[in-house]
Amino acid sequence: MRKNLGAKPYLYPMPVLIVAAYDEAGGANAMNAAWGAAAGAQQIFLCLSPGHKTVKNILAKGAFTVGIGDAAHVTACDYVGVASGNDVPDKLGKAGFHTSKSEFVDAPVIQELPLALECKLIRYDTESHHLLGQIVNVSADESVILADGKLDIEKLAPIAFDPANAAYWTLGEKVGNAFSDGKKLQ
Amino acid sequence: MRKNLGAKPYLYPMPVLIVAAYDEAGGANAMNAAWGAAAGAQQIFLCLSPGHKTVKNILAKGAFTVGIGDAAHVTACDYVGVASGNDVPDKLGKAGFHTSKSEFVDAPVIQELPLALECKLIRYDTESHHLLGQIVNVSADESVILADGKLDIEKLAPIAFDPANAAYWTLGEKVGNAFSDGKKLQ
Repeated sequence: MRKNLGAKPYLYPMPVLIVAAYDEAGGANAMNAAWGAAAGAQQIFLCLSPGHKTVKNILAKGAFTVGIGDAAHVTACDYVGVASGNDVPDKLGKAGFHTSKSEFVDAPVIQELPLALECKLIRYDTESHHLLGQIVNVSADESVILADGKLDIEKLAPIAFDPANAAYWTLGEKVGNAFSDGKKLQ
Repeated sequence: MRKNLGAKPYLYPMPVLIVAAYDEAGGANAMNAAWGAAAGAQQIFLCLSPGHKTVKNILAKGAFTVGIGDAAHVTACDYVGVASGNDVPDKLGKAGFHTSKSEFVDAPVIQELPLALECKLIRYDTESHHLLGQIVNVSADESVILADGKLDIEKLAPIAFDPANAAYWTLGEKVGNAFSDGKKLQ
């Protein structure tokens, strides 16, 4: 029997996206966002409210990066979600994060997060809070790249956000091959 | 040292969203989508190309549901991604899925998937393939609802899609509390 829970944003699993940008003086900041997805093969969708310092920075610079939150940095990823760059000037320092400038866009790459999308702003709507970005490059630490050039998801160890219980989870085990397992039913 | 992988839609973890809608004759169909996210507290974003039978159905009916792919139905979830409702009339039957009509929108709820978002179409753009929906209700099987009314994520067992390796993964273990763990660094 099914029960009705009301209108809730309960998608599972949700990512832990660490969105980073420079302010006009070149200072790096970042925030934690769960509402984001690929919006095409080279585009990203995010829903970010305009009060965030990071959103102001993205609008100023027209660029941002998205680091994938991982199991080794749960506390730091949560910290950039609970503290605001509007109040804490050295928020990334307090998180223990270090940045270097992306080779491709005018935005900081957080070195501690092994996978990052480097993006240019396409548009942002202040009413809906919907942001669209062009993915210009993905950079990965060599520690999470396999010999054949593919990503090693176990080493990447991305975390998921559980919106109903405000919790972070690791991934468990591989249980299937996409575009393949379903062919058994054809 | 970081390596550049090019412009790729590598967000982790990605959901396995089973998007379902009725055709004009009331027949149910569904597809598998990884490009989706909450787009506000009561909105959902999806990126779906217009050739899909399900997209035609969503445009015809103005409604759809999003079932959360789970570990118990990996093969069926992959099947609705590899077979097309344009070619296979009884695609859901072949997947072993059964549907009932949502109480809230004119769209089918797949009974085997324990969590579903029931949505009305707000708009769809045929060029960008971006779809925005209003989440009207979330329904959950009572087997995944805890005594306190919260969702039991271990019983829900949502799966994640790994776009770099075309694989499905379970969730592992809880590793943190959101809006809480980060306060240690304040």
